[in-house]
Amino acid sequence: MENVRDRLSRQVNFIVEVDRLKEIFRQTVLVNSRRAENDAEHSWHLCLIVITLAEHANAPALDLLRVLKMVIIHDLVEIDAGDTFAYDTKAMEHQHERESRAADRIFGLLPADQAADFRALWDEFEARQTPEARFAAAADRFQPMLLNCRTQGAAWQRHGVTRDRVVARNCHIAEGSASLWEYASEMIDQTVAAGHLAR
Amino acid sequence: MENVRDRLSRQVNFIVEVDRLKEIFRQTVLVNSRRAENDAEHSWHLCLIVITLAEHANAPALDLLRVLKMVIIHDLVEIDAGDTFAYDTKAMEHQHERESRAADRIFGLLPADQAADFRALWDEFEARQTPEARFAAAADRFQPMLLNCRTQGAAWQRHGVTRDRVVARNCHIAEGSASLWEYASEMIDQTVAAGHLAR
Repeated sequence: MENVRDRLSRQVNFIVEVDRLKEIFRQTVLVNSRRAENDAEHSWHLCLIVITLAEHANAPALDLLRVLKMVIIHDLVEIDAGDTFAYDTKAMEHQHERESRAADRIFGLLPADQAADFRALWDEFEARQTPEARFAAAADRFQPMLLNCRTQGAAWQRHGVTRDRVVARNCHIAEGSASLWEYASEMIDQTVAAGHLAR
Repeated sequence: MENVRDRLSRQVNFIVEVDRLKEIFRQTVLVNSRRAENDAEHSWHLCLIVITLAEHANAPALDLLRVLKMVIIHDLVEIDAGDTFAYDTKAMEHQHERESRAADRIFGLLPADQAADFRALWDEFEARQTPEARFAAAADRFQPMLLNCRTQGAAWQRHGVTRDRVVARNCHIAEGSASLWEYASEMIDQTVAAGHLAR
């Protein structure tokens, strides 16, 4: 058993290493300044969404703490593997392999017991089988959609993404929250009607 | 009782409004690029710190979900009130008054029951009386200190902050976690010894 000082030292080095998440930029742009969002901002926004929309989850008794832990760490692998745009099918081919190697290195900075805990949370998030992972994944899909809809479809327009692809990519929101998917579907229809997303 | 659609609509407008947290910049700079950190990145980093360092809290049975909720929302008031630098005593005079008005407006965007819940969480964080608020506050002090120590005291140097002020400002970390404060004190000593923080 390591002593407290040694554990803290490993944990703090991990906390410093993941500062890099603030420099991994995404395709989504912010509502006001319209600059690209980064993964740390995105992860915080998911936390906020989870605590604000928890009442709409399909599962009646969600372990919200586990949902939050998942969204806090879900993108750390992108520090090594980079952000993969949700509509870039070529980059998505080897995504899980790249991210899995990244998870080994990044969570491996922690004390072994905690590395295993964080890895298990990330695996749970990726597998999307538990009610908690499904709700976390719903937030992870809803957030960029929402920012896209509130920025005249900026990222979708830039990449020529069409309505059917947005629906195909995001419809699993319904597995986490049927009412949120219903709301999101209306939002997509309005964005199409406004001419900001191609049919 | 509002229906689900009305509640979701208010909640989503709140989620969009707080996107502005990503544009409130702080004095602390990032470890690698050395650009100013913003409040959303800071808030995410606090979440990460809370789940990584929870074992070091003084309180044996902390409600970690409540700690996380507090750190997720603790800086939303700065959307209206702006960031107050921890060593700017003049700006701190009317800080709570400005932030309290901001809390009324921003949490007031939510359905009334939820606005009251979020406001209670923010009040709890500010009062720093419960074990949860004390641990949240410890994370909130430790994070900028850590980034300062890993960037050759960048923000401290720029503002001529000295060791005694850093200690006076941050020593309440010990109320949340004695071992974290012990670790932080050593970190301060090393930063002074390296010539990055004035005696």
